[in-house]
Amino acid sequence: MAKRMRLNAVEMANPVQDNAGLWLYPGNRVERYKDLDYWIELAQTLERGKFDALFFADILGVYDVYQGSRDTAVREGMYFPINDPSYAIPAMAAATEHLGFVLTASLSYEHPYALARKMSTLDHLTDGRLGWNMVMSNLDSTARNYGLKQLDHDERYNRGDEYLEVCHKLWEESWENGAVVRDRINRIYADPAKVHEIGHEGKYFKVPGIHLCEPSPQRTPVLFQAGSSDRGREFAAKHAECIFLNAMTENETKFLVQDIRQRAERYGRNPEEILFFPKINPVIGDTEEEAQQELHNLLAYSSPEGALSLLSVWTGVDFSTVSSDDLLAFIRKGEQRSGTNYLFEFFKRNGGDEEWGIEQLSKYFAFGGVGSLRVGTPEQIADQLEQFMDHTGVDGYNIAYATRSETFEQFVSKVVPVLQHRGRVQNEYATGVFRHKLLG
Amino acid sequence: MAKRMRLNAVEMANPVQDNAGLWLYPGNRVERYKDLDYWIELAQTLERGKFDALFFADILGVYDVYQGSRDTAVREGMYFPINDPSYAIPAMAAATEHLGFVLTASLSYEHPYALARKMSTLDHLTDGRLGWNMVMSNLDSTARNYGLKQLDHDERYNRGDEYLEVCHKLWEESWENGAVVRDRINRIYADPAKVHEIGHEGKYFKVPGIHLCEPSPQRTPVLFQAGSSDRGREFAAKHAECIFLNAMTENETKFLVQDIRQRAERYGRNPEEILFFPKINPVIGDTEEEAQQELHNLLAYSSPEGALSLLSVWTGVDFSTVSSDDLLAFIRKGEQRSGTNYLFEFFKRNGGDEEWGIEQLSKYFAFGGVGSLRVGTPEQIADQLEQFMDHTGVDGYNIAYATRSETFEQFVSKVVPVLQHRGRVQNEYATGVFRHKLLG
Repeated sequence: MAKRMRLNAVEMANPVQDNAGLWLYPGNRVERYKDLDYWIELAQTLERGKFDALFFADILGVYDVYQGSRDTAVREGMYFPINDPSYAIPAMAAATEHLGFVLTASLSYEHPYALARKMSTLDHLTDGRLGWNMVMSNLDSTARNYGLKQLDHDERYNRGDEYLEVCHKLWEESWENGAVVRDRINRIYADPAKVHEIGHEGKYFKVPGIHLCEPSPQRTPVLFQAGSSDRGREFAAKHAECIFLNAMTENETKFLVQDIRQRAERYGRNPEEILFFPKINPVIGDTEEEAQQELHNLLAYSSPEGALSLLSVWTGVDFSTVSSDDLLAFIRKGEQRSGTNYLFEFFKRNGGDEEWGIEQLSKYFAFGGVGSLRVGTPEQIADQLEQFMDHTGVDGYNIAYATRSETFEQFVSKVVPVLQHRGRVQNEYATGVFRHKLLG
Repeated sequence: MAKRMRLNAVEMANPVQDNAGLWLYPGNRVERYKDLDYWIELAQTLERGKFDALFFADILGVYDVYQGSRDTAVREGMYFPINDPSYAIPAMAAATEHLGFVLTASLSYEHPYALARKMSTLDHLTDGRLGWNMVMSNLDSTARNYGLKQLDHDERYNRGDEYLEVCHKLWEESWENGAVVRDRINRIYADPAKVHEIGHEGKYFKVPGIHLCEPSPQRTPVLFQAGSSDRGREFAAKHAECIFLNAMTENETKFLVQDIRQRAERYGRNPEEILFFPKINPVIGDTEEEAQQELHNLLAYSSPEGALSLLSVWTGVDFSTVSSDDLLAFIRKGEQRSGTNYLFEFFKRNGGDEEWGIEQLSKYFAFGGVGSLRVGTPEQIADQLEQFMDHTGVDGYNIAYATRSETFEQFVSKVVPVLQHRGRVQNEYATGVFRHKLLG
């Protein structure tokens, strides 16, 4: 039997994500990110489409590599302004029954003692529907505003290992099963002998005490991760239950899936229990022509400058100082810097280099980078999603949108029924907590 | 015309607060603090009663002064376990239209750059219904779990002054009015020239950048504070718009109201714009006899040990090592340590000392300390609330409960109508944001 296709929707609590310029598309009310109504409606739409989860990306700074300034980000509403996404979750949870919620939270700034309480609280209030996307923040602008200097890349991950160790002790070891007795005869709410100090003393953290929360339905939220560097993959293999992959080719996806599963096996884990979700951007039409027309209409709003400002953050190179020729040369080098190899793959996949200048590039960045675009009828998109899944071993998709609400509305009403008819997307939710729903 | 009586409900995201032992009262389902349904129902009850706000107290540690151990707190469910209260707010906001939400958050641990985003987000999502109760955490157990040592009392407040300065700059100065233009013709989401780096460099914080959120309806949440020490009152007079007073005698209340208003005047503030809310615990009956019977029934469940463990935290004295006689001697000294002078006042008010042993004391601590109890028919309670208000100059009350849901249900259905009939409690909410509703 074909593997079930799991679906997550990608959102952020800000006006514009990777879809640079598309906030201008008619009817795209991006400013609704500030309204509870928007989030509640979205959650209900996704639950109607039997999505597994809403995946909240997040950053704690502003993109300021391009032109050495945050002006482009501010003007374009690109990833900025950005609210704390965690606060949409309780309202969405109250309006749904099954949908999971994956919250991105950095291991670099909030103290694990406080983060553990926050996650336990959300897992309680959602009745066990929480996931945590663990990120090591990599923006200098964030570190500066915390009055800190960034640790170097690998040390961030070393510290991350210890951070997770603290969280694990708080969530899994501090409270025994059965510690909360609520014994009204003997007047015992919780048995002090079954609640334990974790006594953590490490290189980065000292947390002697007990977890502030009684055990939540899942104790540990489902752990997501998205790192693709060598150190990031090692971290994922050790800790993550779900991996979010940035869009890329079949070959690269297949490599990453196998690589991380092999590493996980070395940690004694069952490699099949790690789920992979590449990001895709669907553009849907009732006919192929309609879909292409829709893509054309959307691209008319894309912003080259916005796209380059994104690319500048992803690569660390200020593209305002780079000519078209230099950009192509740079990309052709296929360096191993973050994002760069994807670009290289992207160029190859799209027939080489010369015909792809900055303008064309930016149009494709209007859809969140490279390789994520899926254009066609519901059947064609369903075909593409099934094939990519079967060829690469991924377990489903993180679906991003071109325009707020509309993309998800269309995907749920048009593509999901096709995938359900083919037995790939669930018709009903499984019972139980998020981890059980995802892993079966 | 008599001043409007403002009403806030006091809650925490934990099983038991100051009402030690009362979780055992039949039907008191304290464990519902983990359920969204509980919070949504409560918010709707309070809005039916035209309450101004739900006031969320919070702590980030566990009480462990009594017997030098956290065992009593764990066994009694006293302030522990404790979830993050902020996450109940969005679900309650979605289910109500006017009710305000006051969130306690410490200035001692979370970085102001992150706290400012959290508060702006909640103010956006609640459409301007947020208040912030600013506390300087004072539990050693919290500091230890953050790997820190506590600053001394006055330095905590000095740091608090700078903390608020950072928040003020982020909320009020970083984004000009009109910075968010959403100009679809010129493709400008926000005007970079109207968004400003705050450039904060102080003794405790360096925050060079811009606020992550566009201006929320109130920008700055309504500022609450509860400090009663000399330094705490100075802080309140400088910053707070609302003051939460722990229950105490008329004379002491009157003194504090006048003292803080005078200090505020020295900061150039209008002293009448600072609102005071003492805490009260109502016990309501249809007849006086019924009310006294209800009090008797409740007290049968009170926990002397739980009360002493609270008292130990408030005074810093481990009362497990103190005999009844020593306790009375200690209290009679009326020392200026936190809480001690209230105890002294309490003893005087209740006719002296000898007849009040630890057992009797603990029963009154079953209602959150001293002076807060109001027992009687709805009319009698209304009388007491009106008189205390008129004699002391306070602006309303923070109402605590004996048993979860039931106390507020009774207060809303029985006492509020009497107070509305007398023209003291509002019949309809004013329009506008929380600050406008509170201050008119």
